[in-house]
Parts: sequence; structure tokens; C-alpha cells
Amino acid sequence: MTENIKFAVIGGGSWATAITKMLCVNLSEVSWYMRNDSAIEHIKTHKHNPNYLSSVEFDTNKLLLTSDINEAVAYADYIIFAIPSAFLSNELSKLTVSLQDKVIFSAIKGIVPETSLIVGEHFHFQYDIPYYNIGVITGPCHAEEVALERLSYLTIACGDANKAKVVAEHLSGNYIKTKITDDIIGTEYAAMLKNIYAIAAGIAHGLGYGDNFQSVLMSNGIREMKKFIKKVHKMKRNINDSAYLGDLLVTGYSVFSRNRMFGNMIGKGYTVKSAMMEMSMVSEGYYATKSAYKLNQGYGAKTPIIDAVYEILYEGKDAKTIFKKLTDQLD
Amino acid sequence: MTENIKFAVIGGGSWATAITKMLCVNLSEVSWYMRNDSAIEHIKTHKHNPNYLSSVEFDTNKLLLTSDINEAVAYADYIIFAIPSAFLSNELSKLTVSLQDKVIFSAIKGIVPETSLIVGEHFHFQYDIPYYNIGVITGPCHAEEVALERLSYLTIACGDANKAKVVAEHLSGNYIKTKITDDIIGTEYAAMLKNIYAIAAGIAHGLGYGDNFQSVLMSNGIREMKKFIKKVHKMKRNINDSAYLGDLLVTGYSVFSRNRMFGNMIGKGYTVKSAMMEMSMVSEGYYATKSAYKLNQGYGAKTPIIDAVYEILYEGKDAKTIFKKLTDQLD
Repeated sequence: MTENIKFAVIGGGSWATAITKMLCVNLSEVSWYMRNDSAIEHIKTHKHNPNYLSSVEFDTNKLLLTSDINEAVAYADYIIFAIPSAFLSNELSKLTVSLQDKVIFSAIKGIVPETSLIVGEHFHFQYDIPYYNIGVITGPCHAEEVALERLSYLTIACGDANKAKVVAEHLSGNYIKTKITDDIIGTEYAAMLKNIYAIAAGIAHGLGYGDNFQSVLMSNGIREMKKFIKKVHKMKRNINDSAYLGDLLVTGYSVFSRNRMFGNMIGKGYTVKSAMMEMSMVSEGYYATKSAYKLNQGYGAKTPIIDAVYEILYEGKDAKTIFKKLTDQLD
Repeated sequence: MTENIKFAVIGGGSWATAITKMLCVNLSEVSWYMRNDSAIEHIKTHKHNPNYLSSVEFDTNKLLLTSDINEAVAYADYIIFAIPSAFLSNELSKLTVSLQDKVIFSAIKGIVPETSLIVGEHFHFQYDIPYYNIGVITGPCHAEEVALERLSYLTIACGDANKAKVVAEHLSGNYIKTKITDDIIGTEYAAMLKNIYAIAAGIAHGLGYGDNFQSVLMSNGIREMKKFIKKVHKMKRNINDSAYLGDLLVTGYSVFSRNRMFGNMIGKGYTVKSAMMEMSMVSEGYYATKSAYKLNQGYGAKTPIIDAVYEILYEGKDAKTIFKKLTDQLD
């Protein structure tokens, strides 16, 4: 293990909590930023996050908890962002400490709404971070199963293999296996696109389609994802690797996925607005749908599933009609 | 639609019942063979199969029900076999009518235990049926969802595209979409191999592995299937098509799959013998595991999942230990 590298985790949600848990296995000190002061106080007193994965007990001696993002960034060599993409711009606007020379890993699966960029691109273009200092942590991994210490496999992507290796080593443990790749763009797009397919799976379920159709949808989904990612960044990759297909499956088949739940409500007849209000948060896939659709206007990949979800979410078209049309385009 | 072609369905189980239902949409007459005389009487009187998919009501005027397999074979131009592979040899031994000039489609997903051949090969090598008269009907398709008339996609494979088209046309309907392919060997091997991966998924679940691992297992499973089938019959195919990946997913994620249930019992500590007795039937995947493993001794594809299932089912090795070892071979 590379010694003396300092890590900070940005975010107080379930995935940030899971990542902090993993890091604490391998480090004697982890900086952990979250906005919520009362959650920090709770963790200090009760050794667990009151809001997410509350069964996970932390050795609080290891935690440098802070509600000041600058403190976390100033401390760390490697910074792992694990907040909803919708909050990223706001958090970054608080920065007074420079991100230069920091290694930035994204555990965010989505599109930054303000720039319509995936997180890696956002850091690169908006903050001038070179790609060799940017990486991605991707699943297939439900944070809840990390809490239960169930075996999970992570893929760590970075243009600089040594940095991917550093992060992989610091996340690995008895129940976490890691592999590294240099496909930083492909893994991040896959993590983003899979949320659209999870929405599609939810819509199908809400409309009364069954397991036979779900498997056809996922089979078409991975083929569509392959075409899309190939347009964005052509390189040799096996789309059936865990970071792509595995990540699609763990989300598309999960009844706990917020994206799938959101889709399910749409399929059952909720309007987009009422489904959002009901869920009290916006699913990552909602933004991803718009970005992927718009991006693809330039790429021209054949993406009937993304198109169908877009038409339903953004053009107010009837889910039942659109999916009936979609079923003729799948095989 | 090609007119005046006569079909017979061989089998009284759920998949045979579903296929007969599909054919009845497009034909005024279907020959339907099953061993069980009392089931035949029940169908004649009550218009439904008492044992399988009993919600499906048949227009009995269309059904030529018979418990004499020779009657069904003599009647038909196209014969669809939909019985467990373990019963095929016994049924075929009753034949006095010739199979020559008959078009034979297999809806059986397995290996013929006596010859260790997939069904198409069995007919070819044991009954001298030319490959252009042999085809395969494959999913992803749970028969139960056909009963509910939920949209399902079938792939019809035959070396002779016209014959595939005939079968596709006669099965298609409002809730059944079909596509054809000439990959008769690949689709049949996929349908057979997926049962092994379903057993693996069951074992994993029985041992306490979660959804994260399941998605990694399926992701590795489809890569392993691709390598295996490529060794058996190399041709251009997209392993992510519904007939391969879709079929794997619908079975591997189904809690109703007999193969998955069988694996689950093994994972929970049942012996192979007691799991079989408990289920009162042998899962297709049990035979498939042995055949695939033995076949692969010659092919030498890297198949850690098949190997692990084989060691557990046939060498009496401890499931927990073998899966621990397997987890190091997946990524």
C-alpha cells in the first residue's frame, strides 16, 4: 500500500458513507465533509451517520469530520466526490482552496445539470484539472450492501494507472474487490446512461410489462449503451465488463433504485412533476436523459430507449403510446 | 402467412402449453401430444390444462389432442418438442412413424442426458435429420407471462431461413414478437448454458451473496458464455442479443427458475440428492453442467463459473469454499 496519502470524501449520503467505511479499513485518518452540522455531531457522539447506512459503526478517532469543504480539500491529496450531481456546482462554488495538484475521483453517477457534462469533463473544462488527475469510482455497487459487508466489485478508472491503483488499494478489503481501467470516459458515461435504462425499466414495470420484456429491454439497453459510448470515446472495451453491464444490471433490476422508482411512477400515470415531488428528490437519470438525448443529436447513435424516455420526460408524451412504439424497435 | 402447414406440439408442460396457445392464434388446427390421458380429458371438458398455465382457455375445436406420439408426428409437417430433455429419449423410442421430411423445432433448453448432445445435435446424429430441417425456439420467455399475454420476444433459429420464418409467423401475435437467426447451435447452447449460470446465481444467493455480486456474476457469465459458444461454433453473433443475454437474464434473475431454486438449496446446505428430491424433479441445468464441463475439457475455454458449479454438483465439493475461490476469478 502506498503510504501517507491523504483522502477526503465529499458528501454525507449513502455512497459517501460507504466509501468512507471502505477507506477507514486501510487508513488511520480520513477527512469527511458533509454540509449537515447536526449529522456531524451525531456521528461524533453515536459513531454512525443518522441519515444513511446507519448500521455502519465508525471508529470516530479516524474521522476528520468537517462541514467546511475547504478544510477537507486543503487536507487531502485525493478527493472523492460522492454527492448528487445536482449539488456539485453549488459545493464547488464554496471553494477558496485550489484544486490544482489534487487528484479528484468522482463517485457521482450523473451529469452536472449546469454544464451538461459528466463529472470528469466538468472538472477538466471548468477547473482546468488535467485528465491524469481525474478518476472515476464505479460499481456495480449498492451502498446498502457495503454496509452489510456483502462482497462487491468496484472499477477504478483513471488515465494515470498509478493513481487508479492508489485508490483501488485504499478501497479494497475483505468484501471489496477492485480492478482498474483507463476508460475514464466510458465508465462514467456508462454509470450515467444506466440510470436512463433504469428509468425505462421502471416505466415498463409501471405500464404492466413483465420480466420477459425487462430482459429484452436490458439486452437492448446494453447494445444501445455500447453504440453511444463508442461515439463519445472510441477505444477497445468490453461492454460486458462489470463496470458497464454489471452496473446496468444492478440498477436496472433493483427495486430500490431511485431512477427505477421514478420511472415506475411515470408508468403508473404520475406526471413528471408529481413523481418528482412524491420522491422529494430528482433522480440522476432525469438530467442524464436530457443530456444524453441532446448529445446524441450530434452523434447520431441509434438510441430508441433514450429517445423514448426523453419524449416521455421532456416532451410530455404519453408513456403507454411511446412504449408501444418502442417495443417495435427492440428485438 | 404460409398456408396449410400442419403443426404438432409435443409435451404437456407449461412451455408446451404456452406454445400451443400461440399457435392457436394463427391456426385453425393444432395437434397436441401429451402422455397424460387424464390431462387430455380435462382439457377437452374444461378447456384448460389442469396442471400448467391453467388460466389459459383453449378453443378445443382447434385442438387435436392425443396421447399417442405417433399420431401427432404423422399429422404434422412441423413438430415442436417442448418436454424436459430427460424425457426426450423415452418419448422418441415410442416412434414408429418416421421423422424423415419432418421439420423439427426444439423448444427444449437442455442436454439429452443419454447422448450429452443438445437437442438439435441429438436429432441430427441419432435420427439423421438434416440441419436444414432442425430449428430452435428460444426466449427470453417465461411461459407464465405468455399465459398473462405479457409482451414477449422469441428468437427462432434454423439453418433454413424460410423454415424459421414459417415458425416465426405461426407463433407471432399481439403479445409475441419474433425474430429469426441462422445460429441454431449458438442459440441452443446459450439456452442450455444459461441454466448453469442460473444454478450459480441460486448458489450465490443461498450462500448469502447479494445483488452487487449477482450483477458481477451475470456480467462474468455472459462473457464466459460467449467464449464457450465461440469454441463450439464460431460465427458472427452479438452475444448481447435477446436470445443470449436476454435469455440469461430472464432466468438468472428469476426467483421462479427451477435451476435457480435448485442452486439456492445447494447454497443453503442441501446435498445435491436432497435438493433434487425436495424439488421432485431434476433441473435442466444439472445435466447441462456435466455436459458443458466435459465438452470444455476438449475446448479449453476459460469457464470458472461452470467449473465451480461442476465441482459442487458432481465432485461433492463444499459450495462455500468453491464460491470463495470463484470470487477471486471474477472481475
